[in-house]
Amino acid sequence: MFVLVNLKAYPCDPVAVAESAEAVATAHGADVAVAPQTAHLERVAATGVETWAQHVSPVGHGSHTGSTLAEAAADAGAVGTLVNHSERRLGLADIDTALSAAERASLGVVACANNPAQVAAVAALGPDAVAVEPPELIGTGTPVSQADPGVVRDAVAAAEAVDPAVDVYCGAGISTGADVAAAAELGADGVLLASGVAKADDPTAALEGLLEY
Amino acid sequence: MFVLVNLKAYPCDPVAVAESAEAVATAHGADVAVAPQTAHLERVAATGVETWAQHVSPVGHGSHTGSTLAEAAADAGAVGTLVNHSERRLGLADIDTALSAAERASLGVVACANNPAQVAAVAALGPDAVAVEPPELIGTGTPVSQADPGVVRDAVAAAEAVDPAVDVYCGAGISTGADVAAAAELGADGVLLASGVAKADDPTAALEGLLEY
Amino acid sequence: MFVLVNLKAYPCDPVAVAESAEAVATAHGADVAVAPQTAHLERVAATGVETWAQHVSPVGHGSHTGSTLAEAAADAGAVGTLVNHSERRLGLADIDTALSAAERASLGVVACANNPAQVAAVAALGPDAVAVEPPELIGTGTPVSQADPGVVRDAVAAAEAVDPAVDVYCGAGISTGADVAAAAELGADGVLLASGVAKADDPTAALEGLLEY
Amino acid sequence: MFVLVNLKAYPCDPVAVAESAEAVATAHGADVAVAPQTAHLERVAATGVETWAQHVSPVGHGSHTGSTLAEAAADAGAVGTLVNHSERRLGLADIDTALSAAERASLGVVACANNPAQVAAVAALGPDAVAVEPPELIGTGTPVSQADPGVVRDAVAAAEAVDPAVDVYCGAGISTGADVAAAAELGADGVLLASGVAKADDPTAALEGLLEY
Repeated sequence: MFVLVNLKAYPCDPVAVAESAEAVATAHGADVAVAPQTAHLERVAATGVETWAQHVSPVGHGSHTGSTLAEAAADAGAVGTLVNHSERRLGLADIDTALSAAERASLGVVACANNPAQVAAVAALGPDAVAVEPPELIGTGTPVSQADPGVVRDAVAAAEAVDPAVDVYCGAGISTGADVAAAAELGADGVLLASGVAKADDPTAALEGLLEY
Repeated sequence: MFVLVNLKAYPCDPVAVAESAEAVATAHGADVAVAPQTAHLERVAATGVETWAQHVSPVGHGSHTGSTLAEAAADAGAVGTLVNHSERRLGLADIDTALSAAERASLGVVACANNPAQVAAVAALGPDAVAVEPPELIGTGTPVSQADPGVVRDAVAAAEAVDPAVDVYCGAGISTGADVAAAAELGADGVLLASGVAKADDPTAALEGLLEY
Repeated sequence: MFVLVNLKAYPCDPVAVAESAEAVATAHGADVAVAPQTAHLERVAATGVETWAQHVSPVGHGSHTGSTLAEAAADAGAVGTLVNHSERRLGLADIDTALSAAERASLGVVACANNPAQVAAVAALGPDAVAVEPPELIGTGTPVSQADPGVVRDAVAAAEAVDPAVDVYCGAGISTGADVAAAAELGADGVLLASGVAKADDPTAALEGLLEY
Repeated sequence: MFVLVNLKAYPCDPVAVAESAEAVATAHGADVAVAPQTAHLERVAATGVETWAQHVSPVGHGSHTGSTLAEAAADAGAVGTLVNHSERRLGLADIDTALSAAERASLGVVACANNPAQVAAVAALGPDAVAVEPPELIGTGTPVSQADPGVVRDAVAAAEAVDPAVDVYCGAGISTGADVAAAAELGADGVLLASGVAKADDPTAALEGLLEY
């Protein structure tokens, strides 16, 4: 199971979370990545943890003031990026273009979607993985695997039907090892989480708990 | 072949074009619809022509000032709507919601896409039809069926693979009967066109020409 | 005092509200306008009531599928338009362009703003009027004139400092004649309201109440 | 005169440009800043050059995936930020909120505008400076001070009328010391430039040329 910790714009110390994540990943032989603010990519990557961007813009080099250029994110140490997170929605054509941008910069891509139909839609654009996150569960502490397990199963089936090479991650409400185990049980290849680690008093303990599944 | 004439924001007389379209459709036993500005839906529908909206907002009844409510478009006489036109892109989640809105209001939906991958993506959301319109060809007078026939064939195949019930229309650069015939030959079920009719000196003659395929 | 009733996307009968508004306006010699969905402009204008659009797009004639062309709104009977409502925010440059579009189509413009600083900003772009509507009060039934009378006073002063020709309207939470009187007392030239009339069981009674100030 | 070099998403080496800018600024006792991609803020700031962000999001700490948090930009070494660049337009309310975000993070703000009316509008929101950049001149090599000197004079007057404390910078088409001198002559306090330095074969020479006014 891949564990992606999205730091959003939380008031956490990104380097401290990254160090925790790297230590726990090494100790457990687990695959844990951290997605900080773009401005923090460089210092997070310097910890050695697998570093992801939270977003890249659907542009290439050029006159794009205020964009998040995939190549710049990669320069700063990112190896992958979220695209179309429910807090940073893109137009369909822009998702397609952002995927090309990420590919050009050799970034892996997790494209987010609200429900199984949208999972099928983004899977058709060829990301490495899709993440299904019902918006109403984000930040609630109730995992989708518990609130609505059918959503995860249907998302896995939808992605499989479109392209078996596309992994499916499960987001929204994940905070315990039991949630991770439930996601795996439903066919997910990884989990996205945010507040459960980023806002934890003890991120190391929170991550340890997640990996005890 | 379904022929949808999109009047965009062109300085044409929408009622005159609608009357031409209705007369030509009746004379040829053809299926011709007109998509005017939202403010002109009512007067266009009053001509008896099949009337479409150019867009509906991804909302239901509520506090949505400045929205284009699907139910209001239907009230005014629309029986279908374009969604995600390249000049009015929507986020992926918003396309999904706009499709639900259109369905609730009993509007047919043609969802637009730039290329075969995006055709597959929007087809996964369950519209009645998808329209493939490479943005670089819109308004050029060079039909996609001629500039890049593989795009149409691939779009038809992509939609078929996702859902055989979804029709495929071909847009961008259609202006003659030969273009319509070429689109049909490549597997399209209809065409979208705009300036070829809306900006024609003689819309009736332009439509007659289109139907002589 | 100008009274603008914004029907948003509410599930009301726009013609019934328009007829009420026209009857009450005539009976009281008052200035009452109704802003329906764009698709309903024509039927609302047919009642004889002063008819406003809820939004116009920052475009002129051209390839703008899904836009709300100012000229089309005017054709359908609108004599004015809201711009930059908090439910339909525009970029600063787009507000400027939408104002030009409205002027070209001879539509009056009320540009909306959240607070006195934004009132000054939009007043600098030359609308006929600005409306100050703190977003947190919209739809609450608590009028800004009561929740925070300083906002109205400061908005009036801010607009006056920029351009004395710009009227100031007061929105958010207006539902009674006392609210209208309080707005007038604070220096406002009109009020914007929505749910207080559009969702009233008896719109005529709601409007009568508003005009008894 | 303040000289702000916007690297946009150009394929330049941001550290090399920053080192050139720092060396030239020191040699001339001039005020030169560089605005790189957000992901490059940290390495650019490490050169010692005055470092600016190209954009900050209108948000505070919280669930804002893919945002550019003002505090994170400041952490990475930015001391100021552009807001509302013509390539990254914001809604009026969002400009207001982004200004608050920048202030909270102790970032200076240059708010961009297309024309004198928009200059007055953004000046009313209280930035440190406004930059007037007619979009049709960006990247052309023709400076606004030459193409339309009245725009600069009117922008200076417009900002002065709203708030004398707000500086006015002149952007679009600046590439030589004569352009900078002309901008100063027209009342500007600084210049924004991009391709003239970022795409120069020899950024040091380009900057030297700019400062010889």
